[in-house]
Amino acid sequence: MTTSIETSATAFRSYVKKMTSYNQALAVLHWDKATQAPRKGMEARSEIIGTLAGEQFKLATSKEMEQFLVELSEPATLEALDEITRHTVLECKKEFDRNKRIPAERYQEFVVLTSNAETVWEEAREKNDFSLFQPYLQKIVNFQLEFIEYWGNDGKNKYNTLLDLYEPGMTVDQLDPIFATLREKTVKLVAAIAESPNKPDTSFLTKNFPISEQDAFSRFILERIGYDFNAGRMDRSVHPFCTTFNPGDVRITTRFSENDFNSALFSCIHEAGHAMYEQNINPELLFTTLCDGTSMGIHESQSRYWENMVGRSLPFWKHFFADLQKAFPAQFEGVSVEDFYRAINEVTPSYIRTEADELTYNLHIMIRYEIEKGLINQTIEVADLPKIWNEKMKEYLGVVPPTDTLGVLQDVHWSGGSFGYFPTYSLGNVYAAQFTHVMEQEINGYNELVANGDFAPIRAWLKDKIHQYGKMKSPRELVSAITGEGTNATYLMNYLEKKYSEIYKL
Amino acid sequence: MTTSIETSATAFRSYVKKMTSYNQALAVLHWDKATQAPRKGMEARSEIIGTLAGEQFKLATSKEMEQFLVELSEPATLEALDEITRHTVLECKKEFDRNKRIPAERYQEFVVLTSNAETVWEEAREKNDFSLFQPYLQKIVNFQLEFIEYWGNDGKNKYNTLLDLYEPGMTVDQLDPIFATLREKTVKLVAAIAESPNKPDTSFLTKNFPISEQDAFSRFILERIGYDFNAGRMDRSVHPFCTTFNPGDVRITTRFSENDFNSALFSCIHEAGHAMYEQNINPELLFTTLCDGTSMGIHESQSRYWENMVGRSLPFWKHFFADLQKAFPAQFEGVSVEDFYRAINEVTPSYIRTEADELTYNLHIMIRYEIEKGLINQTIEVADLPKIWNEKMKEYLGVVPPTDTLGVLQDVHWSGGSFGYFPTYSLGNVYAAQFTHVMEQEINGYNELVANGDFAPIRAWLKDKIHQYGKMKSPRELVSAITGEGTNATYLMNYLEKKYSEIYKL
Ligand SMILES: [Zn+2]
Ligand SMILES: [Zn+2]
Repeated sequence: MTTSIETSATAFRSYVKKMTSYNQALAVLHWDKATQAPRKGMEARSEIIGTLAGEQFKLATSKEMEQFLVELSEPATLEALDEITRHTVLECKKEFDRNKRIPAERYQEFVVLTSNAETVWEEAREKNDFSLFQPYLQKIVNFQLEFIEYWGNDGKNKYNTLLDLYEPGMTVDQLDPIFATLREKTVKLVAAIAESPNKPDTSFLTKNFPISEQDAFSRFILERIGYDFNAGRMDRSVHPFCTTFNPGDVRITTRFSENDFNSALFSCIHEAGHAMYEQNINPELLFTTLCDGTSMGIHESQSRYWENMVGRSLPFWKHFFADLQKAFPAQFEGVSVEDFYRAINEVTPSYIRTEADELTYNLHIMIRYEIEKGLINQTIEVADLPKIWNEKMKEYLGVVPPTDTLGVLQDVHWSGGSFGYFPTYSLGNVYAAQFTHVMEQEINGYNELVANGDFAPIRAWLKDKIHQYGKMKSPRELVSAITGEGTNATYLMNYLEKKYSEIYKL
Repeated sequence: MTTSIETSATAFRSYVKKMTSYNQALAVLHWDKATQAPRKGMEARSEIIGTLAGEQFKLATSKEMEQFLVELSEPATLEALDEITRHTVLECKKEFDRNKRIPAERYQEFVVLTSNAETVWEEAREKNDFSLFQPYLQKIVNFQLEFIEYWGNDGKNKYNTLLDLYEPGMTVDQLDPIFATLREKTVKLVAAIAESPNKPDTSFLTKNFPISEQDAFSRFILERIGYDFNAGRMDRSVHPFCTTFNPGDVRITTRFSENDFNSALFSCIHEAGHAMYEQNINPELLFTTLCDGTSMGIHESQSRYWENMVGRSLPFWKHFFADLQKAFPAQFEGVSVEDFYRAINEVTPSYIRTEADELTYNLHIMIRYEIEKGLINQTIEVADLPKIWNEKMKEYLGVVPPTDTLGVLQDVHWSGGSFGYFPTYSLGNVYAAQFTHVMEQEINGYNELVANGDFAPIRAWLKDKIHQYGKMKSPRELVSAITGEGTNATYLMNYLEKKYSEIYKL
């Protein structure tokens, strides 16, 4: 590296450190607001979040940043940079170009629109009145089309531009066959389950589970799977989430319900799956834009792996069932581990995505994927959404929500302008099954390890293959390096078919 | 106001809003670090605090700020500004001038010095070795002398320049007679108490008080005195403190000790006294530099008022004693309210300031005041401090600490470069007694209100006379408007003599 490049690279890294310091501070301000800030301080809190986010945006889009990027992204210069700086330059450049191509006043209008749209969406959902939300959603879709024009497109499908925001490199060409596989096999499996006479008894899951005891048991399980409480905390919030300040401080939140054992524990494991990803990122990536999960789909693969492949598996509960019965002796009296295992894996077609079981969940996502693709390619009209939604629910899940509140109005994503995000939930499941398949081959005695509650070798594998890289490797690079193939839904379906055939004795 | 002034004033207010947003964010980051951040995230947290504090300092000392101040502090312009903006200009100008007069590289050296000095002080305290700390303290004192040169002085006493940092307008000329009164009367009173055969029994205060029950009882008391939990929270930290994000979010922390009832509750009331000040600042001052207590002394008057004049008074406990006995029936079995009142007001000369009782506390402060004054006026040498400290302890308190750890090394303040701060603790007591004297005259049935646990009229008076103004009125203006005189220690001594003559039956 020449001295001049070295000087620029050092100045750039220090600039990026400042920029990412704002992100960390903003994450703390948001977390505090969601978990514990007193009511009367909310308004001023929102204002300072707005102010600091504005400062962060200025840093990301400044002339100074532009000069760094022009200078450092010269091919010969890029070549000369160390690997972390090179990837940081590329990551910042992608973000910079994206931001720069949208005229500032149009972006500002979009921010105001989505902020209002979220309020209107809440009202529409409460009143079961899609017509309130419809004009806002129409404007949001129009903005997506406008942004796609600014950002450019691969010429194959406009929706690809949006997919790339959340899952770099993902396209309709890859997703269509994935969802075709999921649809065909899942619909059949759900139908067979519906006809099975061997339904699990779930009555004991809705007994009374005191919150302090659920909290203690959840912490016990999280410690055992390897969430590091010296590099994180667990608190309460209305909606569970995971947030990262730095790899040494990755916090999760949860919400306990006294009469529902099936929700909080698995939500805790889910968020801890996200958190363990970020706790294990290479600390050298701190204060770069690479200190983050590489995509929403890969992130979700980690949460789903721990929640479903591990947390809802029979070997896992064979190991922990004695602890569970000790924590809740009255509630699980006379319940066998098999009864428990079958109960926590009950399949029931339902209206609400966030409450769906592991199997039908992907059908909920598929409906949203098809609708988004249709809206962006202008083959579906916003006005027709309630009708289309219910038709697809009928076709895939066999149930029709009685209200739009329980149907097309249930999710917050569209009101915030997040199009292209939903598919990453199913991609997480698909990736998780692919990774599990490889782990079974590469990790000595994988099944015994889970059955013994010995997760250290699994965590080491995940760190080695995925976590440590942060954004240094793209999702495609990770999947290809680990599995030797592309995204493939067959592994997920094989896993689901085997698991549910046993549970429902098909 | 002309349009041009109006435009500048608006731009200035929006600039100050940005600057104070950084302060709020920094306060959140500090609070989170002190109360709950996981161990492994501390280092990165300190770094982002450093980065954002640097950005805040840049805003406070920028060319842009200078231009605003030059333009808006023209006498005619100042006159034309609304009251809040005018005071904000004056406050920012004072701060700006102070910062500007110190050469940047000297200030940077001072920051590094105090950061290292704090670490060395901790080691010196641990090892009971003043000689480790001595060279650092010498350099810090030299810096104070250098800063006083930059900042200028009233020509009467160099120490006045430092006093003004914490208590604007306070001088040695005012403080000397105050401490003379305190010394003369307190030393006599302490001697009389020592000879009194009527010592309180305090044995029940060190029984076992489960922490969760202390926590619940403290929250009950704080709610009753009027700390607004919808505009604050109470958490745990190693050292109790109060921190303000905005008037709708003023948080306090505490530390419970299972075998000491006498510490946590009164510390909670103390911090809540600070907090109620800030919760009641006029919300229009939000996002200006005036949204803060007007001085350390006035701030301390609020905490000491609630802690001592209210919280350690007999009428207060006559009202709450039934609640106390209900909360801790075994611990206070057979204890009368008078026994309890006498116990929580026990006077014992001791080594450690933070553990001192209400009466001897001022003697601890006086020692520090005399030493600081001597160091700054170069009549005392740093090297002689251990000796001088112990001589003064002997003279005023009649006890000599067996080690420097329990003596001259006990406080963090000097290692951080805070000279001129200590006197504000005693000023808080002095002001509190002056204000109480006026309240007794101005608030109808003041004594009955305390005895009935009805604090609303007292809070309304404090808000009306003190809290609402934030920094809009100087401490001198407040004291003069409320009491019709200057700072006067007679009221405090009258209060203490009356209280302790009764308790010790002198
Ligand atoms: Zn997730
Ligand atoms: Zn205080």
